[in-house]
Amino acid sequence: MKFKEKVSHLECDTCARRFAPQEVELTCPDCGPDLGTLTVRYHYDKIKAVLTPEALAGNREPSHWRYLDILPVSGRPESLHPRVGWTPLYHLPKLGLGNLWIKDDGVNPSASFKDRASSVGVARAVEEKRAVITAASTGNAASSVSLFAACAKMRAVIFVPETAPQAKVAQLLIFGAEVLAVRGTYDQAFDLCLQTALERGWYCRNTAVNPYLGEGKKTAALEICEQLGFDPPDRVFVSVGDGCIIGGLWKGFCDFKKLGLIDRLPRLYGVQAAGSAPLVKAFEKGEKVAAPLRQASTCADSICVGQPRDHIKALRAVYESGGGMLAVEDDEILAAMRDLARRAGIFAEPAGAAGFAGLCRLVSEGGIDPQERVVVLVTGNGLKDVQTAISAVDRKPVPVDANVEAVRSVLK
Amino acid sequence: MKFKEKVSHLECDTCARRFAPQEVELTCPDCGPDLGTLTVRYHYDKIKAVLTPEALAGNREPSHWRYLDILPVSGRPESLHPRVGWTPLYHLPKLGLGNLWIKDDGVNPSASFKDRASSVGVARAVEEKRAVITAASTGNAASSVSLFAACAKMRAVIFVPETAPQAKVAQLLIFGAEVLAVRGTYDQAFDLCLQTALERGWYCRNTAVNPYLGEGKKTAALEICEQLGFDPPDRVFVSVGDGCIIGGLWKGFCDFKKLGLIDRLPRLYGVQAAGSAPLVKAFEKGEKVAAPLRQASTCADSICVGQPRDHIKALRAVYESGGGMLAVEDDEILAAMRDLARRAGIFAEPAGAAGFAGLCRLVSEGGIDPQERVVVLVTGNGLKDVQTAISAVDRKPVPVDANVEAVRSVLK
Repeated sequence: MKFKEKVSHLECDTCARRFAPQEVELTCPDCGPDLGTLTVRYHYDKIKAVLTPEALAGNREPSHWRYLDILPVSGRPESLHPRVGWTPLYHLPKLGLGNLWIKDDGVNPSASFKDRASSVGVARAVEEKRAVITAASTGNAASSVSLFAACAKMRAVIFVPETAPQAKVAQLLIFGAEVLAVRGTYDQAFDLCLQTALERGWYCRNTAVNPYLGEGKKTAALEICEQLGFDPPDRVFVSVGDGCIIGGLWKGFCDFKKLGLIDRLPRLYGVQAAGSAPLVKAFEKGEKVAAPLRQASTCADSICVGQPRDHIKALRAVYESGGGMLAVEDDEILAAMRDLARRAGIFAEPAGAAGFAGLCRLVSEGGIDPQERVVVLVTGNGLKDVQTAISAVDRKPVPVDANVEAVRSVLK
Repeated sequence: MKFKEKVSHLECDTCARRFAPQEVELTCPDCGPDLGTLTVRYHYDKIKAVLTPEALAGNREPSHWRYLDILPVSGRPESLHPRVGWTPLYHLPKLGLGNLWIKDDGVNPSASFKDRASSVGVARAVEEKRAVITAASTGNAASSVSLFAACAKMRAVIFVPETAPQAKVAQLLIFGAEVLAVRGTYDQAFDLCLQTALERGWYCRNTAVNPYLGEGKKTAALEICEQLGFDPPDRVFVSVGDGCIIGGLWKGFCDFKKLGLIDRLPRLYGVQAAGSAPLVKAFEKGEKVAAPLRQASTCADSICVGQPRDHIKALRAVYESGGGMLAVEDDEILAAMRDLARRAGIFAEPAGAAGFAGLCRLVSEGGIDPQERVVVLVTGNGLKDVQTAISAVDRKPVPVDANVEAVRSVLK
């Protein structure tokens, strides 16, 4: 189906005003970029006829493009070949939970969850015939969009805070993106990017303000449902920075429910680092919007966000689902990294392990019944930030001379 | 099928003497560890009856365990859950070649091809009820075996040269391995590891001397055949250090031909870095064994090997297949990294890109017909060695103050 046969309209997250897709550039003109983020609505009845369990079972494509029927693009541009999504969902009974699954999104092409959104974003930019795509990012979204822009032969201009980890910057450069290292925070880089995009007519991949990106992110929820035989879990845990991933997941579960593919919805839990937890604060006060922090600080660079741009969708996800927002200390994140690696064989970046840290916290507080079915999403590969991984481990290599006596005495 | 129903015998690569699997620890006692590497032979007739295209088409498991019928283990231990193999094979017409495919093995669980061998090695160690597994490695094999040992709750002791890249060492530590950083070369680390394994009865994952590891590596060849509809390519290019990967690939193609699943064999091309090319030297002289170099040097750490441990199988692969061994300069490897990233969206580590560099060399020399069907194997993810990636790029981030005028003046 073509885009316009599938997409019905865009809907403002605050005033609920409806827009035809071509009517609006990014956000609701009345509510602005902070409150006026938009949600994509589809012609669900039409899609229901084609997106069935049987159709999916017959579709061998092991990528998130298996859900093209409910994605806001007419087709998958051939140039966007890298295999995104359909990531493994490992059944790993742990923590006293008999039904725990961990979904490893670190095995995506650029080694993070963000490839789901970037691939859809670049596909939209291709369909809109844009020459340049731009993004602000703590790193993962940027490296991801750079990868897909390279495939589509599209110019990419990326705004990163100058503190972004080297591995992520290396990815940007090798993919040929132009990188502006902003002497400031991620929040400042975001505003500069948005303003530049509007000034120059560049396609803006910034999360939250571009309604189509969350549609890419929702595919993880669709996969969880399909991989569990359309029997959704009771709870889902995921790390939260801007709030786009949890918002996207909720959209995915709700879309599948509207299509009749699942008959109930899971409770979603967003996990923030204690030093960067504006959404947790808002949740604890029962508020629908988050007040920005003056300063955010955590070892988990991907969720070090003072002003969560997708706060409305994120908070709605936890309120509507009956879930919650939790804060964990950096030490708990590092412990979760060790535990995921040593017990599950998954090397996660700090933000990637934060969702698991949140689950551990809730279990230790007795907040989960051992019978519940729980999914934790790992959002990025540990190779993205090796320095923090090294700080997470309690052992070091043992230097040894190159002879067998030296080895014997070390091993003793 | 159980191991002993499938595996017929082990055969010495030099004297062709046959051994029952339980008769021998690692290599042929007559020919020794350098010349007496062994090849695993199966009861092909029995396997032929079960391993058919129809059986494979019906097997939805998207991992290399789909080939369990022709792997030297009785079953896949449940603890070894990480999804290895069934990596994407991208059709990317480039370099004037209409039929070029690139297989990206950087998306394996530990981000390298070595997971194929390590998963089979640890599965064997589990079946043999070993308590400790050990390996010497330039990095990738070590991080890979550490991952699977962690899953199997097996102690892992790893010998690395002290120069191994930090990202790879970080992986070892986070997976809980004990790491000995040998003040010496990879070649010395290899010998120390082998001797320690034999002294202590530890399971030795060292490539070449353990005949079962190549069986894991062969699965990439099996996947290439299946992914191309059992119509094998004309040529396959892959980087070569110890020579195990190319030896394993050849074994895979030959096994599939013995099973009647393909009717012809591709020509295999091994690509070494010019500063570390003992197999190229041997090939140019028409020799069946490689003389060790005094010193090896290249930016591609994974193939920086002076004494290629699997020289016999590697040279046999190129002689028997009618392929060859090529050397490329480090500059060509760095150019291949840029090209793979910017045109194919694949971020490869230097050794991972060397196979592609070899293909570029052969194309530039007019050595390939544009109609030929060519596969290039990318063996590891660029995140494994970010420093070299940065040295490969011709641009740097542009620092910019956090205000819109500064951005405008930089973008101009």
